[in-house]
Amino acid sequence: MNPINLAEKFSFIHERWTPKNVARLNDYHVKIVKLQGEFVWHSHPDTDELFWVHRGALTIRLRDGAVRLGPGEMYVVPRGVEHCPVAEEECEVVLIEPAGTPNTGDAGGERTKPTNEWI
Amino acid sequence: MNPINLAEKFSFIHERWTPKNVARLNDYHVKIVKLQGEFVWHSHPDTDELFWVHRGALTIRLRDGAVRLGPGEMYVVPRGVEHCPVAEEECEVVLIEPAGTPNTGDAGGERTKPTNEWI
Repeated sequence: MNPINLAEKFSFIHERWTPKNVARLNDYHVKIVKLQGEFVWHSHPDTDELFWVHRGALTIRLRDGAVRLGPGEMYVVPRGVEHCPVAEEECEVVLIEPAGTPNTGDAGGERTKPTNEWI
Repeated sequence: MNPINLAEKFSFIHERWTPKNVARLNDYHVKIVKLQGEFVWHSHPDTDELFWVHRGALTIRLRDGAVRLGPGEMYVVPRGVEHCPVAEEECEVVLIEPAGTPNTGDAGGERTKPTNEWI
Protein backbone atom coordinates (compact mmCIF):
# COMPACT_ATOMS: atom_id res chain seq x y z
CA MET A 1 0.00 0.00 0.00
CA ASN A 2 2.89 2.35 -0.62
CA PRO A 3 2.52 5.02 -3.28
CA ILE A 4 5.10 5.07 -6.06
CA ASN A 5 6.91 8.39 -5.78
CA LEU A 6 8.42 9.18 -9.16
CA ALA A 7 10.95 11.77 -7.97
CA GLU A 8 12.26 9.29 -5.42
CA LYS A 9 12.44 6.49 -7.99
CA PHE A 10 14.33 8.72 -10.43
CA SER A 11 16.83 9.57 -7.68
CA PHE A 12 17.88 5.90 -7.66
CA ILE A 13 18.74 5.89 -11.37
CA HIS A 14 22.33 6.65 -12.30
CA GLU A 15 22.62 5.05 -15.73
CA ARG A 16 21.10 6.72 -18.76
CA TRP A 17 19.07 5.01 -21.49
CA THR A 18 18.29 2.14 -19.13
CA PRO A 19 14.57 1.89 -18.38
CA LYS A 20 13.47 0.48 -15.03
CA ASN A 21 10.00 -0.75 -14.19
CA VAL A 22 8.15 1.01 -11.38
CA ALA A 23 4.61 -0.36 -11.75
CA ARG A 24 2.62 -3.04 -13.49
CA LEU A 25 -0.86 -2.37 -14.90
CA ASN A 26 -2.32 -5.63 -16.21
CA ASP A 27 0.20 -6.68 -18.88
CA TYR A 28 1.71 -3.20 -19.19
CA HIS A 29 4.74 -1.75 -17.44
CA VAL A 30 5.26 1.79 -16.25
CA LYS A 31 8.97 2.46 -16.75
CA ILE A 32 11.22 5.38 -15.90
CA VAL A 33 14.37 6.34 -17.73
CA LYS A 34 16.96 9.13 -17.74
CA LEU A 35 18.01 10.27 -21.20
CA GLN A 36 20.69 12.52 -22.60
CA GLY A 37 22.04 12.65 -26.12
CA GLU A 38 20.62 10.80 -29.10
CA PHE A 39 19.14 7.31 -29.19
CA VAL A 40 18.76 5.00 -32.23
CA TRP A 41 16.01 5.23 -34.81
CA HIS A 42 13.56 2.40 -34.26
CA SER A 43 9.90 1.47 -34.22
CA HIS A 44 7.70 -0.92 -32.26
CA PRO A 45 5.74 -2.89 -34.85
CA ASP A 46 3.26 -4.31 -32.33
CA THR A 47 2.54 -1.50 -29.91
CA ASP A 48 2.05 2.19 -29.33
CA GLU A 49 4.47 3.76 -26.85
CA LEU A 50 3.62 6.51 -24.39
CA PHE A 51 6.27 9.12 -23.49
CA TRP A 52 5.67 11.41 -20.51
CA VAL A 53 8.28 13.94 -19.47
CA HIS A 54 8.82 14.21 -15.72
CA ARG A 55 11.73 16.69 -15.76
CA GLY A 56 13.67 18.40 -18.52
CA ALA A 57 12.90 18.42 -22.23
CA LEU A 58 12.68 15.59 -24.74
CA THR A 59 12.52 15.76 -28.51
CA ILE A 60 11.03 12.79 -30.31
CA ARG A 61 12.26 12.92 -33.88
CA LEU A 62 9.90 11.43 -36.44
CA ARG A 63 10.60 10.91 -40.12
CA ASP A 64 8.25 13.76 -40.99
CA GLY A 65 8.93 16.17 -38.13
CA ALA A 66 9.51 16.21 -34.40
CA VAL A 67 7.63 16.56 -31.12
CA ARG A 68 9.17 18.53 -28.28
CA LEU A 69 7.94 17.66 -24.79
CA GLY A 70 8.44 19.57 -21.56
CA PRO A 71 7.52 18.57 -18.00
CA GLY A 72 3.92 17.40 -17.71
CA GLU A 73 3.63 16.77 -21.43
CA MET A 74 3.05 13.42 -23.09
CA TYR A 75 2.94 11.95 -26.57
CA VAL A 76 1.98 8.54 -27.91
CA VAL A 77 4.13 7.23 -30.76
CA PRO A 78 1.83 4.95 -32.77
CA ARG A 79 2.88 1.39 -33.45
CA GLY A 80 5.15 1.01 -36.45
CA VAL A 81 6.15 4.68 -36.54
CA GLU A 82 9.89 5.26 -36.66
CA HIS A 83 11.15 7.59 -33.94
CA CYS A 84 14.39 8.71 -32.35
CA PRO A 85 14.42 10.26 -28.85
CA VAL A 86 16.92 13.08 -28.36
CA ALA A 87 17.68 15.23 -25.31
CA GLU A 88 20.22 18.05 -25.24
CA GLU A 89 20.35 17.98 -21.45
CA GLU A 90 19.46 15.12 -19.14
CA CYS A 91 15.75 14.56 -18.88
CA GLU A 92 13.55 12.19 -16.93
CA VAL A 93 10.90 10.29 -18.85
CA VAL A 94 8.09 7.91 -17.94
CA LEU A 95 7.30 5.25 -20.55
CA ILE A 96 4.18 3.09 -20.65
CA GLU A 97 3.93 0.09 -22.96
CA PRO A 98 3.32 -3.65 -22.82
CA ALA A 99 5.69 -5.57 -20.53
CA GLY A 100 8.63 -6.93 -22.49
CA THR A 101 8.68 -4.20 -25.15
CA PRO A 102 12.38 -3.71 -25.99
CA ASN A 103 13.73 -0.15 -25.77
CA THR A 104 15.32 -0.40 -29.21
CA GLY A 105 12.23 -1.94 -30.84
CA ASP A 106 12.93 -3.47 -34.23
CA ALA A 107 16.42 -1.94 -34.42
CA GLY A 108 18.04 -4.12 -31.75
CA GLY A 109 21.77 -3.64 -31.26
CA GLU A 110 24.09 -2.81 -28.40
CA ARG A 111 21.80 -0.23 -26.79
CA THR A 112 19.13 -2.84 -26.10
CA LYS A 113 18.48 -3.21 -22.37
CA PRO A 114 16.69 -5.87 -20.31
CA THR A 115 12.96 -5.25 -19.84
CA ASN A 116 12.59 -6.97 -16.46
CA GLU A 117 14.58 -4.70 -14.15
CA TRP A 118 12.70 -2.92 -11.35
CA ILE A 119 13.60 0.03 -9.21
CA MET B 1 2.38 15.91 -33.64
CA ASN B 2 1.21 18.08 -30.78
CA PRO B 3 2.22 17.14 -27.25
CA ILE B 4 -0.55 16.57 -24.74
CA ASN B 5 -0.09 19.20 -22.05
CA LEU B 6 -1.76 17.95 -18.89
CA ALA B 7 -2.02 21.30 -17.09
CA GLU B 8 -3.71 22.77 -20.16
CA LYS B 9 -6.10 19.83 -20.46
CA PHE B 10 -7.03 20.07 -16.77
CA SER B 11 -7.79 23.78 -17.24
CA PHE B 12 -10.62 22.80 -19.60
CA ILE B 13 -12.33 20.61 -16.98
CA HIS B 14 -15.00 22.25 -14.86
CA GLU B 15 -17.04 19.25 -13.73
CA ARG B 16 -15.75 16.98 -10.99
CA TRP B 17 -15.83 13.17 -11.03
CA THR B 18 -16.14 13.20 -14.82
CA PRO B 19 -13.14 11.58 -16.50
CA LYS B 20 -12.14 12.78 -19.96
CA ASN B 21 -9.83 10.93 -22.33
CA VAL B 22 -6.64 12.68 -23.40
CA ALA B 23 -4.70 9.89 -25.11
CA ARG B 24 -5.08 6.39 -26.45
CA LEU B 25 -2.35 3.77 -26.02
CA ASN B 26 -3.33 0.62 -27.92
CA ASP B 27 -6.64 -0.36 -26.27
CA TYR B 28 -6.00 1.75 -23.16
CA HIS B 29 -7.12 5.28 -22.41
CA VAL B 30 -5.26 7.96 -20.49
CA LYS B 31 -7.96 9.93 -18.69
CA ILE B 32 -7.90 13.02 -16.52
CA VAL B 33 -10.37 13.86 -13.79
CA LYS B 34 -10.88 16.47 -11.08
CA LEU B 35 -12.05 15.06 -7.74
CA GLN B 36 -13.31 16.51 -4.50
CA GLY B 37 -15.25 14.77 -1.77
CA GLU B 38 -15.98 11.07 -1.58
CA PHE B 39 -16.75 8.67 -4.42
CA VAL B 40 -18.55 5.31 -4.22
CA TRP B 41 -16.97 2.04 -3.16
CA HIS B 42 -16.42 -0.13 -6.23
CA SER B 43 -14.03 -2.51 -7.92
CA HIS B 44 -13.08 -3.34 -11.49
CA PRO B 45 -13.33 -7.12 -11.79
CA ASP B 46 -11.45 -7.29 -15.10
CA THR B 47 -8.68 -4.75 -14.84
CA ASP B 48 -6.11 -3.00 -12.71
CA GLU B 49 -6.47 0.78 -12.51
CA LEU B 50 -3.61 3.27 -12.35
CA PHE B 51 -4.03 6.49 -10.34
CA TRP B 52 -1.48 9.28 -10.78
CA VAL B 53 -1.86 12.54 -8.90
CA HIS B 54 -1.11 15.63 -10.97
CA ARG B 55 -2.07 18.28 -8.38
CA GLY B 56 -3.41 18.10 -4.84
CA ALA B 57 -3.82 15.04 -2.66
CA LEU B 58 -5.88 11.90 -3.14
CA THR B 59 -6.71 9.19 -0.64
CA ILE B 60 -7.65 5.79 -2.02
CA ARG B 61 -9.53 3.97 0.71
CA LEU B 62 -9.18 0.20 0.62
CA ARG B 63 -11.03 -2.28 2.82
CA ASP B 64 -7.86 -2.96 4.79
CA GLY B 65 -6.28 0.49 4.84
CA ALA B 66 -5.69 3.50 2.64
CA VAL B 67 -3.12 4.97 0.26
CA ARG B 68 -2.48 8.70 0.27
CA LEU B 69 -1.03 10.16 -2.92
CA GLY B 70 0.52 13.58 -3.50
CA PRO B 71 1.67 15.17 -6.75
CA GLY B 72 3.96 12.90 -8.75
CA GLU B 73 2.82 9.81 -6.90
CA MET B 74 0.99 6.86 -8.38
CA TYR B 75 -0.69 3.67 -7.25
CA VAL B 76 -2.17 0.71 -9.10
CA VAL B 77 -5.37 -0.71 -7.62
CA PRO B 78 -5.36 -4.40 -8.59
CA ARG B 79 -8.34 -5.86 -10.40
CA GLY B 80 -11.15 -6.91 -8.13
CA VAL B 81 -9.94 -4.84 -5.18
CA GLU B 82 -12.61 -2.62 -3.67
CA HIS B 83 -11.61 1.01 -3.38
CA CYS B 84 -13.11 4.42 -2.72
CA PRO B 85 -11.31 7.60 -3.84
CA VAL B 86 -11.61 10.55 -1.44
CA ALA B 87 -10.19 14.07 -1.66
CA GLU B 88 -10.64 16.73 1.02
CA GLU B 89 -9.73 19.49 -1.43
CA GLU B 90 -9.97 19.43 -5.19
CA CYS B 91 -7.26 17.33 -6.79
CA GLU B 92 -6.29 16.50 -10.35
CA VAL B 93 -5.76 12.85 -11.20
CA VAL B 94 -4.61 10.93 -14.27
CA LEU B 95 -6.15 7.48 -14.71
CA ILE B 96 -4.90 4.77 -17.05
CA GLU B 97 -6.99 1.69 -17.78
CA PRO B 98 -8.52 -0.16 -20.72
CA ALA B 99 -10.82 1.95 -22.91
CA GLY B 100 -14.42 1.58 -21.81
CA THR B 101 -13.69 0.87 -18.14
CA PRO B 102 -16.58 2.51 -16.23
CA ASN B 103 -15.63 4.95 -13.45
CA THR B 104 -17.96 3.23 -10.97
CA GLY B 105 -16.82 -0.29 -11.89
CA ASP B 106 -19.15 -2.99 -10.63
CA ALA B 107 -21.10 -0.55 -8.45
CA GLY B 108 -22.86 1.32 -11.27
CA GLY B 109 -25.40 3.93 -10.21
CA GLU B 110 -26.00 7.59 -10.83
CA ARG B 111 -22.35 8.62 -10.64
CA THR B 112 -21.46 6.51 -13.67
CA LYS B 113 -20.13 8.68 -16.53
CA PRO B 114 -19.60 8.02 -20.24
CA THR B 115 -16.20 6.57 -21.12
CA ASN B 116 -15.93 8.04 -24.60
CA GLU B 117 -15.61 11.78 -23.93
CA TRP B 118 -12.40 13.51 -24.97
CA ILE B 119 -10.90 16.81 -23.99
